[in-house]
Amino acid sequence: MTAEIFVVGIGPGREECLTPQARAAIENADCLAGYPLYLDLLPDALKAGKRLVSSGMRHEEERCSLALDAALSGEKTALVCSGDPGIYALAGLTIELMEARGLLDRLNLTVVPGVPALCAAAALLGAPLMHDFACISLSDLLTPIETIRKRLRAAFEADFVCVLYNPRSKGRPLHLAEAIENARMHRAPNTPVGLVRKAFRPGQSVSVHALGQFNPELADMLSIVIIGNSSSRRAGRYMLTPRGYAVSRGTA
Amino acid sequence: MTAEIFVVGIGPGREECLTPQARAAIENADCLAGYPLYLDLLPDALKAGKRLVSSGMRHEEERCSLALDAALSGEKTALVCSGDPGIYALAGLTIELMEARGLLDRLNLTVVPGVPALCAAAALLGAPLMHDFACISLSDLLTPIETIRKRLRAAFEADFVCVLYNPRSKGRPLHLAEAIENARMHRAPNTPVGLVRKAFRPGQSVSVHALGQFNPELADMLSIVIIGNSSSRRAGRYMLTPRGYAVSRGTA
Repeated sequence: MTAEIFVVGIGPGREECLTPQARAAIENADCLAGYPLYLDLLPDALKAGKRLVSSGMRHEEERCSLALDAALSGEKTALVCSGDPGIYALAGLTIELMEARGLLDRLNLTVVPGVPALCAAAALLGAPLMHDFACISLSDLLTPIETIRKRLRAAFEADFVCVLYNPRSKGRPLHLAEAIENARMHRAPNTPVGLVRKAFRPGQSVSVHALGQFNPELADMLSIVIIGNSSSRRAGRYMLTPRGYAVSRGTA
Repeated sequence: MTAEIFVVGIGPGREECLTPQARAAIENADCLAGYPLYLDLLPDALKAGKRLVSSGMRHEEERCSLALDAALSGEKTALVCSGDPGIYALAGLTIELMEARGLLDRLNLTVVPGVPALCAAAALLGAPLMHDFACISLSDLLTPIETIRKRLRAAFEADFVCVLYNPRSKGRPLHLAEAIENARMHRAPNTPVGLVRKAFRPGQSVSVHALGQFNPELADMLSIVIIGNSSSRRAGRYMLTPRGYAVSRGTA
């Protein structure tokens, strides 16, 4: 029988956002691998009696390797990611390591999609993503800062709504400030900027700011920042990017 | 007591992708509103005894209005969308109509996020979205074709992975062909193009093509097309966009 590994997206974190497919993959696993914070997000009942394999930040490769080792040893293994495993998470690295170790035909890989952080944040803000959007990570650990700058420029110039992952950390406190400065060159000062921290987790905070006044220091690594396009606006307490239906043209 | 409306993302369609939060919103509803195909995707047990309100394609505004009417009449109402309600779905139009009808303070709106089509497609392809991506709808029903062209150009030039929604329909059979031609000016012929049709639904099909040979006529309105960036490649049967970890640099 071929060994199996599941790379599982648990969504933003709250149990009510965990799909039955993800839950089943975790329940059926002998071994759960993941970043400590993500394993902590799982209900204890789902972890009981399972071997937990963890490793800290920046040890993604070790985490994936340990999960592959567990699967090869015959343990049913679920590698747990928050949000969706295919967006800045471990689905890709798992495939790269399977390839590097000659396991592509020896292991059955199932990627279990989850509710990504960008959708969790958007739902709490209202409807900021109703039109074309670009999703950009501000982390330059694995991407040259010049590439990030180029993509931000292109996204602002083409009027994409911009979703920023990893907006700010101690190691790079200024990337978000620079991105916001860049946005101010292409968007009106009253363009809404949505900031969601710990979406669907204890301590959740949601706020909408005007681009002209937005303070980048409000964001951290647990935040998602969404910068509206030229038609984004506030509607009551919501952040709204009209899709372009008649009603919005009528009220524009 | 304030009237309540839930705009609910049911994910790609299969019950195992329906989050408990979405399931609860549907179970607790007296009235379910939605596009017929999406209501059909729901298990019969979830629809039993509920009033179903539906309207066809291009009647999104009517659908949202009927849902708002139901909520105002005191029915617990869930407006059902496939995928995530905030990505090319009805969360935004619902807020626009609430605003136009002066209901922003009279109705409690809850947007329930779901697994979006882009994540469902990516999971089936492998890991095509591991780096910055742009999400673009090729439908010009509500967007000038020039805006779509400008965004495609910007996304290709800045080396975003490109996720295309509504890639092709009888009404616009040539938009995807034009987008692919544009992509060929910026990407190598062996750049992988992922095509996923009916993700997690009966009749699902998944294929990876080389940009140079991709036939746009394979896609339709039930398809998601993902065009890789300059580092995307095949790894076995998977479509992979390396995030940039050491392992990928080592095997590059």
